[in-house]
Order: sequence, then structure tokens, then C-alpha cells
Amino acid sequence: MKGKVTALLTANYDIVKIEKGTIVTPKGFSAAGLHSGVKKQRNDLGAIFCNVPASVASVYTLNKMQAAPLKVTKESIAKEKKIQAIVVNSGNANACTGKQGLEDAYAMRKAAAKKFNIPEHYAAVASTGVIGLQMPMDKILSGISQLNPEQTNESAEQFNEAIITTDLVTKSTCYQAQINGRPVTIAGSAKGSGMIKPNMATMLGFVTTDAAIESDILQLALKEVTDQTFNRITVDGDTSTNDMVTVMASGQAENELLHPSHPEWQVFVQLLRQTCEDLAKMIARDGEGATKLIEVEVKGALNDEDAGKIAKAVVGSPLVKTAVYGTDANWGRIIAAVGYSEAVIDPESIHMFVGPIQMLRDSQPLPFSEEEATAYLENHEVKFTIDLQIGEGYGKAWGCDLTYDYVRINASYRS
Amino acid sequence: MKGKVTALLTANYDIVKIEKGTIVTPKGFSAAGLHSGVKKQRNDLGAIFCNVPASVASVYTLNKMQAAPLKVTKESIAKEKKIQAIVVNSGNANACTGKQGLEDAYAMRKAAAKKFNIPEHYAAVASTGVIGLQMPMDKILSGISQLNPEQTNESAEQFNEAIITTDLVTKSTCYQAQINGRPVTIAGSAKGSGMIKPNMATMLGFVTTDAAIESDILQLALKEVTDQTFNRITVDGDTSTNDMVTVMASGQAENELLHPSHPEWQVFVQLLRQTCEDLAKMIARDGEGATKLIEVEVKGALNDEDAGKIAKAVVGSPLVKTAVYGTDANWGRIIAAVGYSEAVIDPESIHMFVGPIQMLRDSQPLPFSEEEATAYLENHEVKFTIDLQIGEGYGKAWGCDLTYDYVRINASYRS
Repeated sequence: MKGKVTALLTANYDIVKIEKGTIVTPKGFSAAGLHSGVKKQRNDLGAIFCNVPASVASVYTLNKMQAAPLKVTKESIAKEKKIQAIVVNSGNANACTGKQGLEDAYAMRKAAAKKFNIPEHYAAVASTGVIGLQMPMDKILSGISQLNPEQTNESAEQFNEAIITTDLVTKSTCYQAQINGRPVTIAGSAKGSGMIKPNMATMLGFVTTDAAIESDILQLALKEVTDQTFNRITVDGDTSTNDMVTVMASGQAENELLHPSHPEWQVFVQLLRQTCEDLAKMIARDGEGATKLIEVEVKGALNDEDAGKIAKAVVGSPLVKTAVYGTDANWGRIIAAVGYSEAVIDPESIHMFVGPIQMLRDSQPLPFSEEEATAYLENHEVKFTIDLQIGEGYGKAWGCDLTYDYVRINASYRS
Repeated sequence: MKGKVTALLTANYDIVKIEKGTIVTPKGFSAAGLHSGVKKQRNDLGAIFCNVPASVASVYTLNKMQAAPLKVTKESIAKEKKIQAIVVNSGNANACTGKQGLEDAYAMRKAAAKKFNIPEHYAAVASTGVIGLQMPMDKILSGISQLNPEQTNESAEQFNEAIITTDLVTKSTCYQAQINGRPVTIAGSAKGSGMIKPNMATMLGFVTTDAAIESDILQLALKEVTDQTFNRITVDGDTSTNDMVTVMASGQAENELLHPSHPEWQVFVQLLRQTCEDLAKMIARDGEGATKLIEVEVKGALNDEDAGKIAKAVVGSPLVKTAVYGTDANWGRIIAAVGYSEAVIDPESIHMFVGPIQMLRDSQPLPFSEEEATAYLENHEVKFTIDLQIGEGYGKAWGCDLTYDYVRINASYRS
């Protein structure tokens, strides 16, 4: 019943997780993070630096009110399709800040270029935090001058801390595989955690790899992988003004240039996919106020796109999210979300499972033990499986429960 | 700057609100409500009866998993485009209940026809409540046999109580206007209050009128009005399996048959619109856990459809809703929702107001007093106005804040 995506996801490409790996594990990269004063106490400014101009790929929020740093980063990348440094601040999104905001984003880029002694278009910038406040540029510029990227896990963790906002934990992952007999390493760092919804969100992702690959090809891979990972997570259905995922590739693994015709192309895609899926799930699990990770798996849909639509509708339903929080096996809400997902369904042919417990067979409700269902929903990871039985479409999505803490956090974010 | 809809909405058609009016105020209608035992204590079964076969119009949820009673009601209406009775239960939605559920909905209709001594296809049925549980038909059938509709406001209020679920208050309204020199009366009763989102929701609306109008023409009017009222409210973004709005017209006002070419056609449309808008706003204000009604007014959009999209996106944003709950003038979230609404915008030309306080002029943020803004957001009704300055499109939407109580109510709805 499973479609081509599954086959890809479950295939074994001898990919190894590097438990202690960070964004500086791939060859060529260093990182830094510090407290510049935008936020009260925690790190709020970070940088990733590559010792050569790196190939680059980047995807951005679909929100039409794109923040100033996104415009500047796009300009940098457009010029030569190479970048060497990314500077990121948290605490202020530099979004909806008008002309001043755009000038500030340029000033941030200029300061980064000066600090790292690179052309301006080799520097990218990103911001996350409150919307609509002007940037405290004195602090940002002074902070940039103090950034000293190093190739240590400690400096990577300083960067990871510098990019988070309401996240409770930092998020990073690292994998390695052999390509052309050489170890190729990839790693990522990300931040969540509200305004998270398919098509990017208040989400920043930074991926480093030492793979040798040209920017256009890297962009192809990133696009494909983003649709199956970052665009499959939902925290609250809001899509932010600031989000981007950027991949830098140093080429220092010295594999033969990657390309879809390379015999080990899928190994690289899988490295990138696993990295992005790890980060996406970490973001969902650490959604604002979340206590649980929800995974929705859809099989038997008309096509993969429809499967994705359904998985996202279920994982995004506030009623499903509150029921999971309350360990209430109110499966009717799951089916209601399937029904409004806009995917093609046959209302009479649906199988549905809450964890291992089948609730619907051919759309007929089955008797089940409330105790058993409640016990299942007390897990920190819960899974719903839906089989539409009309095709081969397959897809997953991830989200989190909706809790009192989500309301608490967001009722007073700025204070 | 206001488009045609505004003109219509604000025009004065000498429509009078009947403060003590109920669904039995229009000539020909009676109502009943009682406790049948589906719910623990409160009324859970009601009926509206017309002393003649009434013209009828009805709109339904777009959810593909439509509940059994909707199928049966559609069948009834399709046969002769007249109905004489509607029986409604709360406490159990009879949705996702398979073949048994469909049989039960037919049995409910049959019992209603027998009770009121009318052909089966003159009876409509509706249900609201938990999804996925089989109906306790012994209670329902016994309850139907005890329904005795009367033409008193007390019996109308018994009906109003019988249809609510987590609503805190019953919802009804009544208006009157002169058409052909005769008083034409219209009234409505509705229930909310979770799973409320554009394109119907866990929402039932029942409108009675003594206007003389044929079913097809009534359907035209209802469709137009629904798009501007019930389809403009959002509580949580979930679209239910059960929702419908049904209008019955007894014809006993003895006006000349209404039709778009009737000189007072717009008077009738305005009666219907005002009735539906009242009910829609009552539903939004009484959204699960809500403490405030939020109104979003959008002007200057490319067209009315885009204005509606933007208004709905803003009023549906969990981040806007939590900020309103927390009286936090975090206006960036409003603009972020404008950006992801999928409407055409010019990111550089937006005016935006929180109540009377202008936050953006031509997309440039303005200084404002936090104290003043917080004080404004402490009102029980808050309004955001967005002027895109690119066209004549105009629209409104209504919603409510997102509170701890929404989570509490929905984390344990079934228990």
C-alpha cells in the first residue's frame, strides 16, 4: 500500500547518526553565539562561518509580509549563489519595520561582511522574535564585531542558543554517510516554536555539509526534502514573516560533484532528509506549551499530495490537539479533520488507528477500551494512522498538543 | 473606499428589531424542547413545527464526512422543496456512526413524521454533540413522542436550550419590516461553539419567517447571506461534520411573492442578513472559553472575496487570539496573518488600526501608547481595521479570543 516516498524513507543507505555532531562537524565550518543585549539574558546573536565561499540553497516563508532580512539574504544569494557567513539574531524579527528595518538589515549584513572580511554578498542575515519593533542596532552591530566563530561543539551550542526564542531546548542533529568512498557529513540547527505551520513558520533552520555540490542542485534537493519535512509540521497554524532554511555546502568532503545522475545521489538526499526530519520533529515536539509529539501517518490516499493534506489537517486541528493533551480518545475529531482536509476521500472506506488501537474499519466504528486508549495517549509520542484505501498516496505530518501553556506563553509574549 | 457590500449593510431599510421576538413570532410556527436523556440534565431534544408545508432553504458543512442527519435532511428537502418540521437533538452528533447511524437518522425522521402526522419527506433532522458514538435511540424516539410544539416564547426558549452543547448562552434574534405594506417577521435560533470556522462549523442555525417566497429563491438569498455572516466566523478553525443552517418560510405574512425583481427584495435580504449576522456574532462571542468578541474589518482590498480572506485569516490566528486574551497589543501578529491570508496585498501600503489607535501608516509602524492600547484591548468587543489601499473590496469577520478555558473545555469534552 505504501507509495514511493515510503520506500525512500525506509530504504537503508548506511546513514550513521553522529551523536555528538554539530554544525561545525562538517569540514570547513565554525560557529559562534553570544549575548548582545537584544534579549535580557540569553544568547541572542550567532554566526556560522565557512572557510571558503560555500554552495548555498535556501527556502523562505510564503508569507507576503516577508521580513527585511529575508530580502537582504535573497539579494546576497542571487548575486553569485555562494555565501560564506550567516549572522542571525533572536529577540527581534525585524519584520513590519518599514524602510528603517530594511536599512537595518543591510547594516547588519555590512557589519558581518566587515567582521569576516568577505564581500557583502557573501553574507546572509536572519532574524526572529517580536514583529514590528525597530532593531536595537547599536547592540546588534557591537555584537557582530565580537563574534569569533570557532570549530568547537561548545561554540556550535552557543550558536544554537543564540537563535531560539520561546523554545525550551536547542535543536541540532548530525549524520554521516559514505559517498565515493569518502565520509560526507551533514548537520543542522533550528529554532521553533510558535507560528509554526506548513510552508515555513517562525522557524529558522541552518544546515551545514561538506558535500561537494553546486548551488542549483542543492536547491533542488532542499526543495524536495522541505516539502516532506519542515512543511509537514504544525504548531498553531500561523505562518511567520521570517522563516527560512538555508543549507551551506563547503565541498571539502571531496566527493565527486553531486547531481541526480550521481550513483549515490539518493544517499545525499537521504542525509539531507534525515537531518531536516529530525529538526522538524524537534520543532514540533518543542511547540509552545507542548507536552507531546503527535505523528499522523496517512496511507492509501489518491496521491502523496493528498496524503500530506490529510496528515497536516489532522495534526493541525485544535480539537485533536486538545484531546491529545487531555488523553481523550475522541477519535471523531480526527475523522472530522480528514473530512475537511480538501483531499479526495471515500467516506465509506476509511480505516483509522489511535496508536495500535483500531477505531474505524471501512468507516464503521469499532468497540474499544477507553482505558487502553487513554493509557496510550499518555505517551509522550502519539501516532494516528489513517488508511483511505483508495490509492497509493502516502505521507506523514508532525505536531504537538494544545495546552494551557500555549495560551499562557502567547497571551503575554512581549512582556 | 467602501465597496458594495458595505453600502448594503449600512443602508437603512426600516428594519426593526423585535426585542422579545423568538422563532415562534413569525406567523405559522411553534416550537418545543425537552430533556430526553441523551445529555445528563439539560434539554437535548427540540422541534420547530410549521402549520403548513413551508418553503425551505438549507446550507450544509463542506466537510466530506457529513453526518447521517444531513443526508436524511437533504433527501427530505430534495423531494418536494417543502418541509413542515425539524427535529434536533444535542449531546450526540450521529456522525461517523456508519450504517447504524444512517438507519438511526431515518428512524428519527420517521418518528417525527408520525408524531406530527406529516409525510416523512416533510420532516428534517439535525444532530450535534460527540462524534462517533451510536445514538441512544430509545431515548430519542421516546423523546420525540413527547414533543408538543407551542406558539409561546417559553417553548421557543425550550427549543433554544435543547440545541446547545458547550454554549454558555442560548442564541436567538428577531426582526421585522414592511413588505407590500405588510409586516414580515423573521427570527433565528442557533448553537455554537467549538469547531467553528468558515464554511459552516459545529453550528446549527434555524431561521423562521412568515415571508411569502419560493424555496429556490429563498435558497439564493440564504447562500448570499451565509457567505457574509456564518461563513465569516471562526472559533478554532475546525469545520464540523454536522452543520447546517435551515430557513423555513410559512408565507403567512401574505406579501407578494418575493423575487430579486420585487421592489422590496433587498428589504427581505437585509432581514435575513441581519438575523444571520446577529446569530453569527453571538456564536463568535460565545466561542468555547471566549471572553471577547473580535471583529476584523478589511477595506481597500482587491475585491470583496480577498477582503473576506484577510478578515478570516486575522480573526482565525491563534497568535492574534491569545494576544487579545492577554490584552497585548502585539499588532505584528495581525500583519503576519494579513501576509499569509493568500489575498493580494501591497506589503508597502497597509494602514492598520487596533480600535481607534493607528499602528501602521503605509506599512510604516507608528509610535503608540502601550497603556492606551492595553486599555482598549480590555473591552469585551475589540475591533481591528485594515486598509490595503489597493481596491474597493470590503469585508468583515468575527471571532473570539483563545483562552485557558478553550483548552480546559476541549481537553475533556466527552467526560
